[in-house]
Amino acid sequence: MQIPQKIAVVGSGLVGTLLAIYLKRQGHTVHVYDRSPDIRTVEFSGRSINLVMSHRGWKAMSDVGLDDEIRKIGIPVDKRAIHLQDGKLNYQYYGKDGEAIFSLSRGVLNRRMIDLAEAEGVEFFFNHKIWDVTLATATLHIGESERGEWTELHYDKVFGADGAFSRIRHRMQRQSMFDYSQEFMKIGYKELHIPANPDGTHKIDQNSLHIWPRGNFMLMALANLDGSFTCTLFMPFEGENSFEQLKDEATLVDFFAHYFPDTAAVIPDLVEDFFKNPTSYLVMMKCFPWTFEDKVALIGDASHAIVPFYGHGMNAGFEDITVLFEMISKYGDDWKTIFSEYEQSRKPNADAIAELSRRNFIEMSTKTADSNFLLQKKIEKWFSDKHPDKWMPLYSRVTFSLQPYSEALAIGDFQNKIMEEVMQMPNIEEKWNSVEVENKIIDLLK
Amino acid sequence: MQIPQKIAVVGSGLVGTLLAIYLKRQGHTVHVYDRSPDIRTVEFSGRSINLVMSHRGWKAMSDVGLDDEIRKIGIPVDKRAIHLQDGKLNYQYYGKDGEAIFSLSRGVLNRRMIDLAEAEGVEFFFNHKIWDVTLATATLHIGESERGEWTELHYDKVFGADGAFSRIRHRMQRQSMFDYSQEFMKIGYKELHIPANPDGTHKIDQNSLHIWPRGNFMLMALANLDGSFTCTLFMPFEGENSFEQLKDEATLVDFFAHYFPDTAAVIPDLVEDFFKNPTSYLVMMKCFPWTFEDKVALIGDASHAIVPFYGHGMNAGFEDITVLFEMISKYGDDWKTIFSEYEQSRKPNADAIAELSRRNFIEMSTKTADSNFLLQKKIEKWFSDKHPDKWMPLYSRVTFSLQPYSEALAIGDFQNKIMEEVMQMPNIEEKWNSVEVENKIIDLLK
Repeated sequence: MQIPQKIAVVGSGLVGTLLAIYLKRQGHTVHVYDRSPDIRTVEFSGRSINLVMSHRGWKAMSDVGLDDEIRKIGIPVDKRAIHLQDGKLNYQYYGKDGEAIFSLSRGVLNRRMIDLAEAEGVEFFFNHKIWDVTLATATLHIGESERGEWTELHYDKVFGADGAFSRIRHRMQRQSMFDYSQEFMKIGYKELHIPANPDGTHKIDQNSLHIWPRGNFMLMALANLDGSFTCTLFMPFEGENSFEQLKDEATLVDFFAHYFPDTAAVIPDLVEDFFKNPTSYLVMMKCFPWTFEDKVALIGDASHAIVPFYGHGMNAGFEDITVLFEMISKYGDDWKTIFSEYEQSRKPNADAIAELSRRNFIEMSTKTADSNFLLQKKIEKWFSDKHPDKWMPLYSRVTFSLQPYSEALAIGDFQNKIMEEVMQMPNIEEKWNSVEVENKIIDLLK
Repeated sequence: MQIPQKIAVVGSGLVGTLLAIYLKRQGHTVHVYDRSPDIRTVEFSGRSINLVMSHRGWKAMSDVGLDDEIRKIGIPVDKRAIHLQDGKLNYQYYGKDGEAIFSLSRGVLNRRMIDLAEAEGVEFFFNHKIWDVTLATATLHIGESERGEWTELHYDKVFGADGAFSRIRHRMQRQSMFDYSQEFMKIGYKELHIPANPDGTHKIDQNSLHIWPRGNFMLMALANLDGSFTCTLFMPFEGENSFEQLKDEATLVDFFAHYFPDTAAVIPDLVEDFFKNPTSYLVMMKCFPWTFEDKVALIGDASHAIVPFYGHGMNAGFEDITVLFEMISKYGDDWKTIFSEYEQSRKPNADAIAELSRRNFIEMSTKTADSNFLLQKKIEKWFSDKHPDKWMPLYSRVTFSLQPYSEALAIGDFQNKIMEEVMQMPNIEEKWNSVEVENKIIDLLK
C-alpha cells in the first residue's frame, strides 16, 4: 500500500477503468472522468472492432483477480478461418494445445468493468468534459464547452487514459522537448453485422477469427456471446477497391457478390448497415515523454495509439498498467521514479507493437491468401513443436507470452531472415518436414 | 493579375512578409498579423542564428526585384573556415568561381523587408494575437488571451506563415487525416558574440562561415555588417560535453580554453553572454496536408520546420512562395487547384531538405575535422571541375541550383555510394587526382 493520494483518471474506457481498480486497491481515492455518457446507459455505436484479449491482457486482469469474471463474457478463438475468393476455407491455428485469444465485445466488456470498478469504490463522473490540465499542480479544467466557463479540480496525480485524441497529452504536447506524431492510415473501416441464427447459435464457426483476405482490402469477423458476429471491412478510402467507389447500393451488392460471395447468406443487412454506419479512420500516434514530474502520466492509447491488426491495443494498454504497478511495488511512494521508470520501460515496447501492428495488415489482407506464406507458417509450427526450446513463432511471442514486445520484434525479424533462406530451398513444398530442413534451421540459428 | 481577394497572412517573419509582397503585387488586399510587437521598434533578442541566403532565396527575391536591395545588407561567404583544436585552420570552398552564400542578420533582414512590404501597400497589424481559425470560412479569431474574449476577422483566404508552432496549423491538426510530427533534437544552441574591432572591421575573416568542429558539439560564426559576428554554440543538453555540464563560470572558461582556445581573443563577453542568453531548442516539424480547400494554406516553417545545419530554413520557405506563384500563373483564379498543386509539389522537397539538414549536423560538427572527408570533397571538386556535365557536388545542387531538393538528395546518395568505393582505393590519398581515379568514377557513373 502507498501513502493515499487523490487521483483523477481521465477516460472511462478499458484502460482507464482497469487502472482505477488497481489504484483503488492501493488505497487511493480515485475519480474517473469521462466526457461521454455512462456507456451502461446508451446503445453502443456501430463503429467498433471486436477486441481480442490475449496473454498480456489476462495477466493484468488476473493480478487483480478479475480474469474469471471477464472470461465469462469472452469467446475463445484458436485459429484464423481464411475464406478464399473461390469459396475454399483454410484454417491456421494460432498456437499449440488449444492456445486461444478471446473475442470480446467492446461495449459489453467496458460496461462490466465499470460495474466492477464501482463495486471497488471507484467514483465515476460521466458527461464531465475535461478541456485542459495544469501539469505542475495536477489541476483539471472542466466545463461545458471549450470556449465557455471552466472550473478547477485539484488532484495529487492525474492519469490521462483519454485515448488517441487525449486532451491531457494535448497540453503536454505544447511543451518544449515533447516529441509527437500522428499518422492517419490510407485504410479506413466499417462495421458490418452477422446476426445469430433464430435459435441463438452462430452462423459460422464461433472459435475462429474469420478473414476474407483480398490484397489491399479485407473483411474480418469475430464472434459475440449472443450468437452474432461483429464484422469489419478494412479498405482504402480512395483508389481501386475503395470506400470511395462503393457509392450506391448496386455497386456495393455487386462488389460483395464478386469478392465475398459466401457472405451473402450471413450478412442480411449489408446495404442498410453499410450506408448507416460511418467509415472510420485509423490513426497511429506516438509521443514522448509520457509523464510530467510526479504529477501526470499518460497510459494506453493516450500514449501509444496503434492500428488494430495485431489485436493488441487493449493488451498493450493493460500491460502499461502491469508495468506501472511493478514500478510501484519497486519504488513505493517515489512517484517521480515510478513515472520515469514506467515510461522508459514502456516506450520501446509501445513502438515495437506499433510496428508489428502496422505490418500485420499485409499479413492478414494478403499473405494469408498466399500458399507460400501458409507453408512457411506450417514449417515454423512443425519446427517449433519439435524444438520448443529453439523456436517460438512471432505470433506466439506477441500473443501467448509476456516477452517484451521489442524483444519479440527483434527475434521475429531474425527468424524471418532464416525462414527466407529455408523457403528458397529447392522443392521445399515437398521436403518441408525433412531432416534436411530441420538441420538447415538449426544451422542458421547458430 | 488575379481576381482581387481579401487575404490575411498570419506571421510577419521573413516568409510571411515576402509572401505579402507577392500577394500585393497580384492586386490583393493583404493584411499581415503578428502576435509580437513590430520588430523595427524593439531590440532583437539574443537567440538567433544568422541566416544564409542562397540561390533559392535569391530567386524568390529577384522575381519581385528585391534582390539588389537585400544584397546590400548581406556579406558573401564563399567557404568554410575550419578551426581545429590544435589551432590549425583549414578552408573548404563551397562552390566554384567565387560562388557564395550571403550571411544576413535575421533582425536586420526582417526589418528591411517589412519596410519594403509597407512601401508596396501591405498593412501590418502587430501585437494582434490570432488564437484560432475557422477553416471553412477563413475566419480568424483574435483576442488578448487564449481564454479571454475573441473577435472574428473575415477573409477570403488565410495564409499561416506563423512558424514552427503555428496556431493555424494547430487547428488543421485537429482534423481527421491530418498527419503531423514534431521532434525535438537532443542538441540545443546558444548565441554568443564576436564584437567588431574599434575601427569597425571584422576580427576574423568575414567571408567565411567559421566552424569549430568538436564531434558531438560545435561552435560556428557568421559575419554581420557592423563588423561583429553572431556565434552559435551547438551542443547536447545532457551528457558528456553538454549545456548541463557548463553550470558555472570556472567550468565554462576551462571548457572554452580547452576546446576553443583561439576564441579567447575574440569573444570577450563569453561568460556574461553565456549565462544571459537562453539555451534554445531545435525542433523538426512535418505535416500534411498544408492546405484546406481554397481557404487556408500553410507556408514556411509552419508547414516544414527544419534544423538549421544546411542554412536552408529561409531558402526553403522562400521557394514555397516561388512554387505557389508558379501555380498561380498556371491556374489563375482556381485556388483549389493552386493550393493542391502547391502542397503536392512542395511536400517531397520539404521532406528532403529536412533530411539533408539533419544529416548536415554530423558533417559540420564531425566530418569537417576528418582528413578523409576533406579528401573526398577535394576529389569531388576536382572531378566536377573536369566534368561539370557529369558531377555537381550535393552542396552545390542544394545551395547553388534550383534543382528540387528531393532530386538533389537522391543524386547525392548515389554520388556518395560512388565516393565510398573511390575512397577504398589503395593509396587514394596519393593518387586522388590520377587518371585511374577519374576513370573509376566515370565507370561507376555508368
